[in-house]
Amino acid sequence: MEKVNLAGKFALFDDRWSPKLVAVLDDYDIKLAKLEGEFVWHKHDGDDEFFLVVDGHLSIDFRDRTVDLDAGEFLVVPKGVEHRPRAERECRVLLIERAGVVNTGDAPAGALTRHTLDRI
Amino acid sequence: MEKVNLAGKFALFDDRWSPKLVAVLDDYDIKLAKLEGEFVWHKHDGDDEFFLVVDGHLSIDFRDRTVDLDAGEFLVVPKGVEHRPRAERECRVLLIERAGVVNTGDAPAGALTRHTLDRI
Repeated sequence: MEKVNLAGKFALFDDRWSPKLVAVLDDYDIKLAKLEGEFVWHKHDGDDEFFLVVDGHLSIDFRDRTVDLDAGEFLVVPKGVEHRPRAERECRVLLIERAGVVNTGDAPAGALTRHTLDRI
Repeated sequence: MEKVNLAGKFALFDDRWSPKLVAVLDDYDIKLAKLEGEFVWHKHDGDDEFFLVVDGHLSIDFRDRTVDLDAGEFLVVPKGVEHRPRAERECRVLLIERAGVVNTGDAPAGALTRHTLDRI
């Protein structure tokens, strides 16, 4: 049982769109990621997804609107809803979703797909 | 689907040790609470508990040690482990645990026990 200091963990990596596992809550993974640029459109049919912006600005596009998140704001993207995270500049986020959920959801596996996570 | 601004939600209440439901992630409640003083010793036999300090300082006592958390730090208290949150001054936290978990766990129900949550 170790506490997690967000700033300390973010200092350990610099790659974008590659969530790092920092803790586990029951069957859920708690992850940190640095986002920059545009992700792929995707959805997770059976799983909600929690995005908390720790630093920077994140836009989450939906087919009918965009939700803009600043530091200190979070959104739960409901299961089954297509979305595309997007960040003009580096954005740091805390993510929570059920363990085993693949980041690109139902999109074809590609360069951004992560089937396994580094634990930091 | 509404984003949650943490500061905005914290401005809506002032009672201590009374978590407010702000969002749901699958079967988990995402809650905000203001803590001040000493909670009761308790454990949750089947459920981990996530504490993220948003503002202030939180001590979580265990039977053999204390974990101190500042803003930007979190701890997952493992299921079955006795703990006692404690804050000398007001501390603002984001909590996540499975819906239905009672805040005082296995401790006798008392003035601090919350069987239902206000949604804000």
